[in-house]
Amino acid sequence: MSEAGRILLELFIIFLGAKIAGELFERMKQPAVIGELIAGVLLGPSVLGIIHTNAVSETMATVGVVVLLFAVGLETQVSHLAKVGRTATLVAVVGVAVPFVLGYGYVRALGEPSSAAMFVGAALVATSVGITARVLADAGLLSSREARIILAAAVIDDILGLLVLALVSGFGRGQVDLGRTLGVLATAVVFVGVMLLAAPRVVRGTAHLVDRLHLRRAPLGVAMALLLGLSALAESIGLAAIVGAFFAGMALAETSERWELEREVRPLADFLVPFFFVIVGARVDLGLLANPAVLVPGVVLSVIAIVSKIVGCGVGALGEGRYSALAVGVGMVPRGEVGLIVASVGLSMHLVPPSIYAMVAFVTVVTTVAAPPLIPAVFRLARPTARDADIDAA
Amino acid sequence: MSEAGRILLELFIIFLGAKIAGELFERMKQPAVIGELIAGVLLGPSVLGIIHTNAVSETMATVGVVVLLFAVGLETQVSHLAKVGRTATLVAVVGVAVPFVLGYGYVRALGEPSSAAMFVGAALVATSVGITARVLADAGLLSSREARIILAAAVIDDILGLLVLALVSGFGRGQVDLGRTLGVLATAVVFVGVMLLAAPRVVRGTAHLVDRLHLRRAPLGVAMALLLGLSALAESIGLAAIVGAFFAGMALAETSERWELEREVRPLADFLVPFFFVIVGARVDLGLLANPAVLVPGVVLSVIAIVSKIVGCGVGALGEGRYSALAVGVGMVPRGEVGLIVASVGLSMHLVPPSIYAMVAFVTVVTTVAAPPLIPAVFRLARPTARDADIDAA
Repeated sequence: MSEAGRILLELFIIFLGAKIAGELFERMKQPAVIGELIAGVLLGPSVLGIIHTNAVSETMATVGVVVLLFAVGLETQVSHLAKVGRTATLVAVVGVAVPFVLGYGYVRALGEPSSAAMFVGAALVATSVGITARVLADAGLLSSREARIILAAAVIDDILGLLVLALVSGFGRGQVDLGRTLGVLATAVVFVGVMLLAAPRVVRGTAHLVDRLHLRRAPLGVAMALLLGLSALAESIGLAAIVGAFFAGMALAETSERWELEREVRPLADFLVPFFFVIVGARVDLGLLANPAVLVPGVVLSVIAIVSKIVGCGVGALGEGRYSALAVGVGMVPRGEVGLIVASVGLSMHLVPPSIYAMVAFVTVVTTVAAPPLIPAVFRLARPTARDADIDAA
Repeated sequence: MSEAGRILLELFIIFLGAKIAGELFERMKQPAVIGELIAGVLLGPSVLGIIHTNAVSETMATVGVVVLLFAVGLETQVSHLAKVGRTATLVAVVGVAVPFVLGYGYVRALGEPSSAAMFVGAALVATSVGITARVLADAGLLSSREARIILAAAVIDDILGLLVLALVSGFGRGQVDLGRTLGVLATAVVFVGVMLLAAPRVVRGTAHLVDRLHLRRAPLGVAMALLLGLSALAESIGLAAIVGAFFAGMALAETSERWELEREVRPLADFLVPFFFVIVGARVDLGLLANPAVLVPGVVLSVIAIVSKIVGCGVGALGEGRYSALAVGVGMVPRGEVGLIVASVGLSMHLVPPSIYAMVAFVTVVTTVAAPPLIPAVFRLARPTARDADIDAA
């Protein structure tokens, strides 16, 4: 078959698998995203080996996850985040400190050197907000106060993660390049500051120019250019692409209604997002489960990863009430790929041995898969007044 | 930068280039698609070398062009094609015969052997309807009788092209495998027959089941699965993916309104289609223009390619009046990649020398770039009653 034929066949299998699994899970009143993850595991190299993580699927997955966070950003105005700013900062800081310390301690207790332990600690720091955002969006809970705390804390988390990774890599090399670390940090802070303070204002101020473009449906074109540009920019300065995508959406949140952007972006998300979650599933290496040398410490480290985030973030959010604090904590649990990237830096520096890297990969899988069923349950505790239909539909 | 960062940066450059060039061309009252093609030439390897045709851009381009033809299919019911069936068949048959004979004759006149001449003739046969469909869709002319003749003829053209390629390859090998050729042809005819006669009926008959799915916005999910599946299937039996995509849209045309599919697919097309046209531009090898050994016969062959399609298809459509016949003929001019694929089969069989292959590549470029400015002009002649605004906006 031709190149185009192979691309289309692969995308067809991924998409069909996502939709069939999604339908089954919706019928069981479970989040469709769990079905998509499991479809990915089944279709991926671990089981059937029908789909692979190659440039084709990575492209669709990358576009899918940035479109998802863009859609979430469209529903979030800066003022929403400002209202939860203090709580979110506390959630992020304590939620970074506790997992780092516990992760470091456990790996030291296993007899590994300090450098490896620091990388594992750093890997447990990173929150990957894609899964949580998807579950909350599907459940219609994005506008809840807990959801906004999670989103704001995830952004701060990403900056702190950048700092921790810079410091840990520096210690690993034997010297922290303070100037460089501060430079990286300052760039990230300036980016986030501009996004929060200036971007929505710039969009509002230039909206009349967009209306005057001759291009057909220019607002969507401008929105998608902003999405791709800010996502690429965020990656290039060391932040996650999804942080840039979230900011692109947020910059447009105030003009979204006038340009009907939410309605326009919904079909894009419906089509593209499933590719991301199926590919996340396909990346799961079930072989790790079969290896007792990974399985046992992996399970312990996973428990540490989950409990430390729930406790750390929960403590930060205790002022919201204990069920809301629990909801925030659970929402911050997924580590996604971010933790894996941190561990792979340590691996490439020969500071993290392959066995420890496999443990971190295991933790990534467990925290990613554990969150989607837990999130609706804890939100139901936190918001007994929310319409059951909304939460059940998650 | 990370893998995700590189993907996003590349897509950003392509998309931004498409939108800036599109805006400039809309301001000059020219089809935006010309701007996208030129942006591709400028950003591609021939000039700036910023973007490349790799798996990332090919994936987005492939998805883009099938979404485009899907959207065109959504606006086309089987009954529309049936009404123009006789004319379209005549257009396709004469429009295949004339370019084949003239292309063959010219290459023989250049002193090349018969086998090479046959491949060039076969390369001139294939119509790539993507460009025309885009220009007509942008101009709001898809529901015109001329547009429907072009779409139906392009489908028949694709089947005839398959037959011609099978025969030419057979002659090239020294023997025509009649059984295999008939098998390929029969498969294609059965596919098209099922798509025309059964597919819309099956969709209509099962629509109530789709409405009962628990999946969110299930109709779009089903539509996209059908699009990817039928596109892949068409490629796998030797037809073009866009023919499958067109049929997927057409199968849903009657249920489209109820499911609001046209409105849902529009943002998908707005976002994805520009990737296709920029990449088509990026594939243009300007080096061909600098080489007189290619340039001179390439120009002659391009003139032959354009005139033979306009005359061949025009003769087939003469019953529609001469301006309409001209519009149909011009709409059938673009050869796109299809011609190149035919020539590359000959190249790989060592029957088409590289110099002749380069000539065919040149023809592909010329016919692709010549059509977008010509189409609105000839449609304005054929439909003086159409709203000027519609046509000007093309």
